[in-house]
Amino acid sequence: MHVVVNAAMSVDGKLSSRRREQIAISGPDDFDRVDQLRADSDAVMVGVGTILADDPSLTVDDPDRRAARADRGDPENPARVVADSRIRTPPDATVLDDRAQTYLLVSEAAPPDFIEEMEDAGAYVIAAGQDRVDLTTTLAKLEGDGIDQLMVEGGGELIFGLLEEALVDDLFVYIGPKVIGGRDAPTLADGDGFIEDFPEPELAGVEQLDDGVVLHWEF
Amino acid sequence: MHVVVNAAMSVDGKLSSRRREQIAISGPDDFDRVDQLRADSDAVMVGVGTILADDPSLTVDDPDRRAARADRGDPENPARVVADSRIRTPPDATVLDDRAQTYLLVSEAAPPDFIEEMEDAGAYVIAAGQDRVDLTTTLAKLEGDGIDQLMVEGGGELIFGLLEEALVDDLFVYIGPKVIGGRDAPTLADGDGFIEDFPEPELAGVEQLDDGVVLHWEF
Repeated sequence: MHVVVNAAMSVDGKLSSRRREQIAISGPDDFDRVDQLRADSDAVMVGVGTILADDPSLTVDDPDRRAARADRGDPENPARVVADSRIRTPPDATVLDDRAQTYLLVSEAAPPDFIEEMEDAGAYVIAAGQDRVDLTTTLAKLEGDGIDQLMVEGGGELIFGLLEEALVDDLFVYIGPKVIGGRDAPTLADGDGFIEDFPEPELAGVEQLDDGVVLHWEF
Repeated sequence: MHVVVNAAMSVDGKLSSRRREQIAISGPDDFDRVDQLRADSDAVMVGVGTILADDPSLTVDDPDRRAARADRGDPENPARVVADSRIRTPPDATVLDDRAQTYLLVSEAAPPDFIEEMEDAGAYVIAAGQDRVDLTTTLAKLEGDGIDQLMVEGGGELIFGLLEEALVDDLFVYIGPKVIGGRDAPTLADGDGFIEDFPEPELAGVEQLDDGVVLHWEF
């Protein structure tokens, strides 16, 4: 499986403000780049925090790109994957609509009634890991289900979890012309953080886009 | 006064790990760029957190640059400025040595015996602000003392404070090939953070250096 993380951050590395409200960081050209990345992926993954903060659809915006996917025998939209260690996905989340298949990754501690509720809402539930989602195991199961190209759109807790398990192949970071600040604002990679053996990606690309820049890091 | 902030951050916007240990983020070419910036400045400023974490000298490393400063009638090293709202500067801090003049910015709540101790250690103390250093007032006093070009080297609390007061003219950020992660790790701009009226700098330069990239933002 090839895992590509894509995120937009402020000048100072924040994904949103301390209030976790969505803030426009990128512009139309970056939006288009991200839509192409989605269209090129078998599935698009987020953490449950992103579902709660933004309620995204994670679908492909451009109808031509959806048609191109259908033409090559793929579903119009990539599958959606939500990592939800603390069973917080609401049953009316937009990602549970019928525009694409949705996988919900939970830990083995997830209670049967929550799993049943999510399955009733249309999700395909995969459970692995004692208290937290075991990302290595669940991603291997997704790969067994035909997901070879996985795009991850955040947030910072999920991105750190994937980096910790050395599951990330590519990281695209759009850095936009805003300062958000805040010691409690979510960053590109949160979690506990590394204190040694810091991942050292290679800078594979630098592209100015809209009023910011996209950095491509390869792991 | 012209205020230039310079900092090195990880791919994910961190200045160091959650343990606040200094981590090598940049390489020799960036070190040289920063040394030139110091040599071009009348003073180099940090927050007391940086003093406690790294005990830096903040002096110019290259003897040729020091000689060039002396040739034009400047002191060999720029002055040093420490913002210390909570009177934490230790009397044996390296910035208090005699290699350059050192200003200590404190609030009006700083007790006389602390000020006396610092003055005995060689610092020139400027007090403004009720409980926290009033950056606008103290920087104006520094300007009155002949400091026209001020370089700020961090940390994230001081940088946010300066951005909050709209005192920053230029921001150079070296982004190095390391992921640090951590919701509690210090970032380029900490403090309370903005929740609206986010500063929107212009991207004035992008330069690949060592194994990373330097972004120049203009406010």
